[in-house]
Amino acid sequence: MAAAFRLFMEKGYEYTSIQDIIDNLGGLSKGAIYHHFKSKEEILIAVIEKITAESNQMLADIRDRSGLSGKEKLKEIFKKSINRPVQNDIFTVAPDFHNNPKLLFCLLHDTIDHAAPEYILPIIRQGVADGSIETDYPKQLAELVLLAANVWMNPMIFNSSEEESYGKYMVFSQMMQSFGLDVVDEEMLKRLEELTAIYQKNKQQKSARNGG
Amino acid sequence: MAAAFRLFMEKGYEYTSIQDIIDNLGGLSKGAIYHHFKSKEEILIAVIEKITAESNQMLADIRDRSGLSGKEKLKEIFKKSINRPVQNDIFTVAPDFHNNPKLLFCLLHDTIDHAAPEYILPIIRQGVADGSIETDYPKQLAELVLLAANVWMNPMIFNSSEEESYGKYMVFSQMMQSFGLDVVDEEMLKRLEELTAIYQKNKQQKSARNGG
Repeated sequence: MAAAFRLFMEKGYEYTSIQDIIDNLGGLSKGAIYHHFKSKEEILIAVIEKITAESNQMLADIRDRSGLSGKEKLKEIFKKSINRPVQNDIFTVAPDFHNNPKLLFCLLHDTIDHAAPEYILPIIRQGVADGSIETDYPKQLAELVLLAANVWMNPMIFNSSEEESYGKYMVFSQMMQSFGLDVVDEEMLKRLEELTAIYQKNKQQKSARNGG
Repeated sequence: MAAAFRLFMEKGYEYTSIQDIIDNLGGLSKGAIYHHFKSKEEILIAVIEKITAESNQMLADIRDRSGLSGKEKLKEIFKKSINRPVQNDIFTVAPDFHNNPKLLFCLLHDTIDHAAPEYILPIIRQGVADGSIETDYPKQLAELVLLAANVWMNPMIFNSSEEESYGKYMVFSQMMQSFGLDVVDEEMLKRLEELTAIYQKNKQQKSARNGG
């Protein structure tokens, strides 16, 4: 998986073949690879699951921390999520979700069925109890917030330009304020723009290099 | 396609086979069907495209109507969308999006790449001009509103119970108000609950009838 991730980073997911991965594995045969993974997509999903597991540990740490209000925890989560160095790597791999319904499906369902109830919901419940978040429907708010942040604002999914991404953060910020959540600040906006730029730059380079 | 839609309605999408559809077509052979459609999923997508085309005509009519403010048009669209009789049919067919990444992918991209810019964006632009909608980012607001309404609030995608759906409408309503859009009223909430109930009832019946 380390070899696959490195190749995805260098060549881009779309331009890496299973043969490329096998060539970088020394002794392993094609049969051994196919024994574990039915397709390149499954390798990508395994790589993403590994990254997700690390991310979930970070979410759990903030969720379980003491001394922060619900709102402060939510802000901390957004900040930490976009500042992790692995984000640069992910946006460099830049898988093309447009050609990959299964990948989008996994992300969407992981967001709504797992990440939202497991990590965001307990924090929103705490925020409602400590008065820092305003909602009568914590479960649904957790879902909408994470759907917007993980899926809609993800430049890899809807291929947003830097300018379009900026508009998304601003609309997201206005939406959050209606729940008492002023969690997006200037520093976060800068970092989000940076990530979008990394993604767009790498996508163009890879496309040019591969004659696409 | 009419035969397929009727069968999907009666038996449910998951429990209808291509053979069932062929048996209801009189003379047509399996080969002729497969010439047009590679899979059952493609038949469903064709059925959905037909319904979408009718829905788009309704959206275009409201968008181009005169004498309504942007906000009034948006409210009219929500009202009309959920009140169309075909909605009852769709929620009776109740395709299981959980087993169908491609279907979800189509809906998501049609929502963001087509319906939002084509129908919702011009209305929001009008609303900004006539002072009935508050945003500096009409394109992004159009996307977020429709992503929430078409995907997140769709009980077929995330299999929401009636109670969970109600929470979604309320969170959606609060979000909309932050953009000056008080577009969800009691009557609409009732109708949304009714649609969720139709979906849940039919899903259970079909599952029981098919021993699932």
